[in-house]
Amino acid sequence: MTYQVPVDDIMRALKTAVDLDGLIADGVYAGLDEDTVRAVIEEAGKFGSEVLDPLNWNGDREGSRLKDGVVYTPSGWKEAYRQFAEGGWSALPCPEEYGGQGLPGVLSMAACEIWNATNLSFGLCPLLTQGAIDALHADGSDELKAIYLPKMVSGEWTGTMNLTEPQAGSDLAAIRSKAVKQPDGTYRIFGTKIFITYGDHELTDNIVHMVLARLPDAPVGTRGISLFLVPKRLVNSDGSLGARNDVVCAGLEHKLGIHASPTCVMKFGEADGAVGYLVGQENRGLNTMFIMMNAARLAVGIQGVAVAERATQRAVVYAKDRKQGRTATSKPGEMGAIVEHADIRRTLLTMKSLTQAARSICLVTAREIDVAHRGATDEIRKAAANKAALLTPIAKAFSTDIGCEVASMGVQIHGGMGFVEETGAAQYYRDARILPIYEGTNGIQAIDLVMRKLPLDGGTVVTAYIGEIANTAMEVKASNRPEFGRMGERLSEAVDALVAATGFMAQNLQNSPESALAGATPYLRLFGLAAGQHYLARAALAESRDGGDGGNAIALARFFAENLLVAAPGLAETVIGGAEAILGVDPDRISV
Amino acid sequence: MTYQVPVDDIMRALKTAVDLDGLIADGVYAGLDEDTVRAVIEEAGKFGSEVLDPLNWNGDREGSRLKDGVVYTPSGWKEAYRQFAEGGWSALPCPEEYGGQGLPGVLSMAACEIWNATNLSFGLCPLLTQGAIDALHADGSDELKAIYLPKMVSGEWTGTMNLTEPQAGSDLAAIRSKAVKQPDGTYRIFGTKIFITYGDHELTDNIVHMVLARLPDAPVGTRGISLFLVPKRLVNSDGSLGARNDVVCAGLEHKLGIHASPTCVMKFGEADGAVGYLVGQENRGLNTMFIMMNAARLAVGIQGVAVAERATQRAVVYAKDRKQGRTATSKPGEMGAIVEHADIRRTLLTMKSLTQAARSICLVTAREIDVAHRGATDEIRKAAANKAALLTPIAKAFSTDIGCEVASMGVQIHGGMGFVEETGAAQYYRDARILPIYEGTNGIQAIDLVMRKLPLDGGTVVTAYIGEIANTAMEVKASNRPEFGRMGERLSEAVDALVAATGFMAQNLQNSPESALAGATPYLRLFGLAAGQHYLARAALAESRDGGDGGNAIALARFFAENLLVAAPGLAETVIGGAEAILGVDPDRISV
Repeated sequence: MTYQVPVDDIMRALKTAVDLDGLIADGVYAGLDEDTVRAVIEEAGKFGSEVLDPLNWNGDREGSRLKDGVVYTPSGWKEAYRQFAEGGWSALPCPEEYGGQGLPGVLSMAACEIWNATNLSFGLCPLLTQGAIDALHADGSDELKAIYLPKMVSGEWTGTMNLTEPQAGSDLAAIRSKAVKQPDGTYRIFGTKIFITYGDHELTDNIVHMVLARLPDAPVGTRGISLFLVPKRLVNSDGSLGARNDVVCAGLEHKLGIHASPTCVMKFGEADGAVGYLVGQENRGLNTMFIMMNAARLAVGIQGVAVAERATQRAVVYAKDRKQGRTATSKPGEMGAIVEHADIRRTLLTMKSLTQAARSICLVTAREIDVAHRGATDEIRKAAANKAALLTPIAKAFSTDIGCEVASMGVQIHGGMGFVEETGAAQYYRDARILPIYEGTNGIQAIDLVMRKLPLDGGTVVTAYIGEIANTAMEVKASNRPEFGRMGERLSEAVDALVAATGFMAQNLQNSPESALAGATPYLRLFGLAAGQHYLARAALAESRDGGDGGNAIALARFFAENLLVAAPGLAETVIGGAEAILGVDPDRISV
Repeated sequence: MTYQVPVDDIMRALKTAVDLDGLIADGVYAGLDEDTVRAVIEEAGKFGSEVLDPLNWNGDREGSRLKDGVVYTPSGWKEAYRQFAEGGWSALPCPEEYGGQGLPGVLSMAACEIWNATNLSFGLCPLLTQGAIDALHADGSDELKAIYLPKMVSGEWTGTMNLTEPQAGSDLAAIRSKAVKQPDGTYRIFGTKIFITYGDHELTDNIVHMVLARLPDAPVGTRGISLFLVPKRLVNSDGSLGARNDVVCAGLEHKLGIHASPTCVMKFGEADGAVGYLVGQENRGLNTMFIMMNAARLAVGIQGVAVAERATQRAVVYAKDRKQGRTATSKPGEMGAIVEHADIRRTLLTMKSLTQAARSICLVTAREIDVAHRGATDEIRKAAANKAALLTPIAKAFSTDIGCEVASMGVQIHGGMGFVEETGAAQYYRDARILPIYEGTNGIQAIDLVMRKLPLDGGTVVTAYIGEIANTAMEVKASNRPEFGRMGERLSEAVDALVAATGFMAQNLQNSPESALAGATPYLRLFGLAAGQHYLARAALAESRDGGDGGNAIALARFFAENLLVAAPGLAETVIGGAEAILGVDPDRISV
């Protein structure tokens, strides 16, 4: 089945969770209007469904291949990439001074969902290029920016993130790649990086690698890591391409999913060293890398939404088409469509409501990043930056967890056909599985939320956010709408659960951090459910107030509250009462 | 890493959940003793780890292939199968009069776990043969039994189940395959069956297909389906093999997982009809098929346990080996093993405790089937049959759901390496995904539990079982062991939740069955969690009483109670309060 851009669902999230109208009125999104936003999403949807979606299945079968030192992407990829760049899609959120369109991040994330829903393997290429652009724009020298940014913004060159080494995955302190300063101010880079997405390909003439490495005299640990720009091909002073740099793709991983996206082992400095240019200051590379990483984490969250959306679309179409068993409405002796079975409908509503909840969380996070850059006052910008920081690990981890869950439900809806690769549902299940892993595993996200984000600004950031949810709960209750069912009650219970669990974290962070860490993952899940319901409820309130978009806002919000959010009190119990059972077990006693 | 048979975990389930000692003393397992049981498990484990486990990875890579009408299993398969049959493993639970060893089903299921943990694709072959043996033994004529059973018991021939047709998956009433009676009393079978596991292969000289088909004058629906034995090669009266029957494998599915297990499209009667022999009575085939299916459902549950066990073993080894990040006990400047991180330990304990909970449920179900056959009185046998009927859908669905979840956690523990196929964790994730689908989707199991099993014997069967769990809760509370933490409290809450949810089902089954069906899946999950905790708690009580096996019985039971069972009240809320939000949504309004 062909992908259909969920324009109403995206617009609903933008209007009711992001408050698009308010931001336009406030001048944060100056020059934009709702019609333009909708038109961009529809246009992106057209590109996604017409160009990227048809390549997705063959891309998975064919995969990317390494031959004689060159990485070849699947058939059709190069032409699609050319169209993508020519259409200006790579320039969407980029600074206008470098040829970008300067559109808000929230709109860029909406488009990012579309690229990844239609073709996750393709979508990774611009996703990582965007991270490299952000890092270079933030901390690169004017000269580097002038040389590289216009070509990256236009899509003429792509970008990569080179962090991981075999011994340094989640723990970047263990990075060993070396950088040696040269008399001319450049550096020579030596080392092996693994899991480098689009580390090599033939889509563009050049690739701009952002590489973490250590100077010989650097302090140990994360305070001794520097960031370098290492082009695949050197660039002459007139902007033309020069010699090949000393960097090669030494191998591709054979993966569970995203087969079309080349995951490269990259060797730097096998000969006399790869020429690199410092980005930012020596030994401060991790700060810049976190700019890339935070943006990439949100984008990976969007990938979770994207794969969930695509899996849901396929499942809905199948459930309406496939007839099996008698249903309440089927004629005697005839079978009904399986969507009419209550258990199937439960699954589909679970898929749809989880997807919309995660989408809303991600778009609100993008909104806060926009406000952090464009807000009217320091105070507004600071508050938005803090809220974005709080929400980023939830956007990444909650969305990618539900991405896997929804993709798995998508397989199940198809019954035996779901297990047959040609059906297509299985590819989403395979592709989705990387999302909770890369850009910081979801366990790392949970630790980040608890250890770094809860204490932000003395805990006032999280308190204010929970206050927001509590207000929504009160509004739902006050609305007294019978069609809301027990939504207000359930959301209040979830707020109570979140308050209790957050209090437990606050109490333990200083004196018993292990007790806090033991509950980090269920805490993040609890937070994601409550935040997701918050936005679904706001959409329901809007629908009940003004009729909304004629969609399922009320139905989804009510379903989520009465069927999924009910997990909240149990999750709080786990956070508060479950740590001892974990910490009391000596790791040595966990054996096979 | 090499598979290690979890002999202590299996023995603990057999001793504390199954009450092996009691059954031996009662004479149900006459002639057996604990040492023999342990020896059989260890011997099976040896075969599994030495023969089947080493073939698993290559089997996945190579897959089964159809060439010139012949299905070839991967390298090494034929020799492994020969050893399996020669070792007498296929005969384990079979009747002694046909050459079997007559060992209890509970021991057969323990061995089944081992075959499937080491090689799920291989394990399917004997699993389905066993189903065919059960059906033939139950309802076949003496002549058919005399010809076919000894060869199937010895493993000389294998068996299949031919149910599914393109339009008849979950709904067998839609079967169209035809059977035409011949003057000599045999039948000719015509039709196409899909998803036939080991429908063809070169492991044995003959294959015994059990096929559902319809007679020309049969009533519509499930009351018009008959069961036929259709051999791949006809058997002469002296027992030697005759001509090829009119049945061929027309294609193999290209699947997400279990690549080595050939999933066949089978064509019967492309020429003048496949010769078939009626098993049981005309039009009563579904009754016999349900004998196979119930046994197969339990065995599939065991497959869920198996893949969970294997995924857990690999994850534990990796988590102890892989060093990343500072931990509470790592030296300054050094990284600790990731098992020392609280979040990783939470995941591993989740994997281990879910696996042991599901294992216990499955082995208890096998025990009840044994007692249903071997119990001393009619009353005992009847009660056991009812309990087995109640537990079978839970054994199947809960165990296979957690099989997928645990396999997914196993990928996650490995980080980026988990997504690389060579690591091996991804194969379990792919293989496991079929388990919630085949032998009746888990949605069908939930419907079976609610619609057919709760009303058994006027509801007394489920009431008695919940009473069992309640007694365990009281025992835990009364024991007053501080090391149990809040286990007693949590189990009591879960019993309350289960009582409330069961009450809701009882109230709605007659007058509002859709309301009951809407909550069937969360109800089954609630039931599985409570039952799982019941058995984990019994093991903990035993360990606290007599020191147990020196394992982690108390630690796992406490962890499960305080971290997983806490979901019980929320699940009950979903069952009781969630239906309206589902049934209120018109299927037409669920759109992409």
